[in-house]
Amino acid sequence: MNGAESLVQTLADQGVDICFANPGTSEMHFLKALENPRMRSVLCLFEGVCTGAADGYYRMKGRPASTLLHLGPGLANGLANIHNAKRASSGMVNIVGEHSAAHLKYDPPLTSDIEGLARPLSHWVRRVGSSRAVAWDVAAAVEKASEHAGQIATLILPGDASWQEAGEPVVPPRAFSAPKAPEAARVEHVAQVLRSGESTLIVLAGHSTRGRAIELAGKLKAATGCRIATQFFSARIERGAGRVTLERIPYAVGQAVEYLKGFKHIITVETTEPIAFFSYPDKPSLLKSPGTSVHSLVEIGEDGVAGLEMLVEAVGATNTPALLQQPADAAPPAGALGPASIAQALAAALPEHCILVDESLTTGRETMGLTVGAAPHDLINNMGGSIGYGTPVATGAALACPERRVFCMVGDGSAMYTIQSLWTQAREGLNVTTIIFANNSYAILKAEYANMGAGEPGERALAMIDIDRPRIDWLAMAKSMGVPAVAVDTAEAFHKAMADSVNEAGPCLIEVRL
Amino acid sequence: MNGAESLVQTLADQGVDICFANPGTSEMHFLKALENPRMRSVLCLFEGVCTGAADGYYRMKGRPASTLLHLGPGLANGLANIHNAKRASSGMVNIVGEHSAAHLKYDPPLTSDIEGLARPLSHWVRRVGSSRAVAWDVAAAVEKASEHAGQIATLILPGDASWQEAGEPVVPPRAFSAPKAPEAARVEHVAQVLRSGESTLIVLAGHSTRGRAIELAGKLKAATGCRIATQFFSARIERGAGRVTLERIPYAVGQAVEYLKGFKHIITVETTEPIAFFSYPDKPSLLKSPGTSVHSLVEIGEDGVAGLEMLVEAVGATNTPALLQQPADAAPPAGALGPASIAQALAAALPEHCILVDESLTTGRETMGLTVGAAPHDLINNMGGSIGYGTPVATGAALACPERRVFCMVGDGSAMYTIQSLWTQAREGLNVTTIIFANNSYAILKAEYANMGAGEPGERALAMIDIDRPRIDWLAMAKSMGVPAVAVDTAEAFHKAMADSVNEAGPCLIEVRL
Repeated sequence: MNGAESLVQTLADQGVDICFANPGTSEMHFLKALENPRMRSVLCLFEGVCTGAADGYYRMKGRPASTLLHLGPGLANGLANIHNAKRASSGMVNIVGEHSAAHLKYDPPLTSDIEGLARPLSHWVRRVGSSRAVAWDVAAAVEKASEHAGQIATLILPGDASWQEAGEPVVPPRAFSAPKAPEAARVEHVAQVLRSGESTLIVLAGHSTRGRAIELAGKLKAATGCRIATQFFSARIERGAGRVTLERIPYAVGQAVEYLKGFKHIITVETTEPIAFFSYPDKPSLLKSPGTSVHSLVEIGEDGVAGLEMLVEAVGATNTPALLQQPADAAPPAGALGPASIAQALAAALPEHCILVDESLTTGRETMGLTVGAAPHDLINNMGGSIGYGTPVATGAALACPERRVFCMVGDGSAMYTIQSLWTQAREGLNVTTIIFANNSYAILKAEYANMGAGEPGERALAMIDIDRPRIDWLAMAKSMGVPAVAVDTAEAFHKAMADSVNEAGPCLIEVRL
Repeated sequence: MNGAESLVQTLADQGVDICFANPGTSEMHFLKALENPRMRSVLCLFEGVCTGAADGYYRMKGRPASTLLHLGPGLANGLANIHNAKRASSGMVNIVGEHSAAHLKYDPPLTSDIEGLARPLSHWVRRVGSSRAVAWDVAAAVEKASEHAGQIATLILPGDASWQEAGEPVVPPRAFSAPKAPEAARVEHVAQVLRSGESTLIVLAGHSTRGRAIELAGKLKAATGCRIATQFFSARIERGAGRVTLERIPYAVGQAVEYLKGFKHIITVETTEPIAFFSYPDKPSLLKSPGTSVHSLVEIGEDGVAGLEMLVEAVGATNTPALLQQPADAAPPAGALGPASIAQALAAALPEHCILVDESLTTGRETMGLTVGAAPHDLINNMGGSIGYGTPVATGAALACPERRVFCMVGDGSAMYTIQSLWTQAREGLNVTTIIFANNSYAILKAEYANMGAGEPGERALAMIDIDRPRIDWLAMAKSMGVPAVAVDTAEAFHKAMADSVNEAGPCLIEVRL
């Protein structure tokens, strides 16, 4: 077999069985190797969709997908969503095509410093030296990507390493790397904090915002009176009726400072202490009060469940039942669209075990807190802050969980970044309901303009914030890529469109006119 | 004034009066500074449109535009078209927002190594150290971008340098950097080659594919019997009836080798010897015959016109008239759409002094040679090979030359990369006719699959090449962003749509159904 065939076979052998691809000339042998039926290849019309989809796939499946990108510029197009994935600790194996070694020295037009472009946002970068090394290198990439806190592994594949004879794949022995539990002394220190009775907030992140971890956090709360929260953004939270509810540290600096000032202690699990998303003149970067102490229970990459089990045992909460979220009133809303009625429509319509990908910014900040009593669901946030993450992540999540419907809540400005996702959703028949909150504006920036102390935006500044000339016609946009769509401007119509979307297989789009 | 105001004022003082922007929270003070009426700000819904538009602006105006990008990921989204601009020697000043220095150390979510991301594709990267240094730094950036071979200058602007007091702008003295003429000895060497009477090809690029340079090349051809050509891709060629016609070295390796093998000498002007775009098994990288000698007359960055004047004088061709291109038959075509009828429709419909941005790949390779007798026009190609350059470059070219219509000929696959350009074209009322050659396929890859020796693509490989499930509805796509559109499937209808588009101000889109 040639290098490309060796690569695809090794990916599949190592458990990576999906590839989000946008190939070019230098990847033709890889394309041929994708005939291997063990690899599902998914075509995306822009690389930002490939890398975002790999992120979404990881968030739901817990193991890395691969991407196929065309030389340096193809990688560059995928970098923003690689950044978001990196900040979410999503593992990913990027295969970047490259000129053959003999051709590279002539500096042909598509040449660039691929390592240079890859390094700032990859944990691991390697250039394949020969076709016979391909299997070894890609197995190492998969192992790196599969670490407990997922890693970005980028493998550069020169054309000659692709097309030359590779022999049978030879791979390194896979070192099993179970995540470490925190040291007992650290747990005992945190247990003392909880036993002190002083006001304490436990901040959960990473793997510790779902499953057994939140049950354990619920026990700690019930037994010690501490409170439990997440950062404003989380990679994936299991929430809804019947689950332990996590509070959310507010986004706005003033609100976050106010929220945190009641706590004498902050305990972090797979995260760091709360910081502001942006810097503002005359606003702090650190959100805690000066008198608050921060204690790390579980570092990023360590085993959060093990740490929480140890802590529950140390404070004697093993048999304390956690308080569980009550179901919300499931009555459909009526009347005008607003934060409360949007939330009520969501809460009433979300089916059990659906997935919510939230990139709704302005609308979402006022809404999402009100959906906590909906049927049990997974909630996914943007961890890196680069907009255009939502529709690709929803695409990947739907491929990871074909039996669960995905709702992608996205602002119009964000949706335009990677709108090509709709085409892949139509092509693959994915169960994604894209909800466009169409306020015809980068509305979040109006608030940020004031937060920055810049006052009221003038006419020219507003022209850089409002996207209402022309108004984007979302029904036409969806139609252009083969996705059925409906526009709504009342809470009833929104609820009905949501409920309808659940009953029809495949993608659809709802424009919520605000 | 604050740093942002100092920056915008200095840009305008230095002759940079347009900014293609997609701002975020960290750029709010810059947004406020854009109230300065000396700066035209143009909102783009994706950063790849910003950087591509800056490239198009430079190609037609000959001086750099600025872009405003939101931190590392915003820059990343713009990198592919920065790559294309760099390969076209288009100057550009990128302003990249960044967290304030005091905030950066907390590694907030949007943090990345911006220098690391910028360096591989910038000639010059600097981080502003303080608000008082902003003017100095941005003036240095403009000077760098304005070199004779345009350069990519990237300036990183921390929030605090934006909002703090800057005082009056202080800028470095501008060093006037006229491009150097080639040394006399080099010119004399090349003159001897021409006088030898041996078969010679002069390959023109950079600034030497238009104006006085091609007149001079025409004299050399008429006087010495040499032939004159461009590489397959050129940053901008002035061509059409009444101008000196340049041949074009073919793209396909076999054809290019065949074309070049008749020449004993190749003389390069602002370029290097012809090389293959990609590497293929068993095909050469260098396209010339082994017995051909290559002679550099003018290096990249040197003064091509001066070099050609010296050469014309040395061979005594000063008074030799150049042969000029005859006008093509301007009769509109009829019947089925094919390379010849498409070319005939273009040749008949192109108005004098229009601008053609060509990213038509498969269709264009068979067509463009046949349009050389059209009315005089400018032809722009993709120099970096990263697709998605066409619609942004057309956007920038239209802003540079509001009195000239721009025709953007683009394949459907390429158009989907940066389709957000249509929105900016509608918003700014730009005179751009986008011609989508809709073959529902990355058709070029089918040929490349065979060229690579991979044979006939199988079902799964074809699924990564064909984009016909679903077919993109281009009329709906144009409508979604406020651009009027028409679909054509005959040569008459294509010609009529082209001619109609000239008579109506503002953008339009023609879907050519192949």
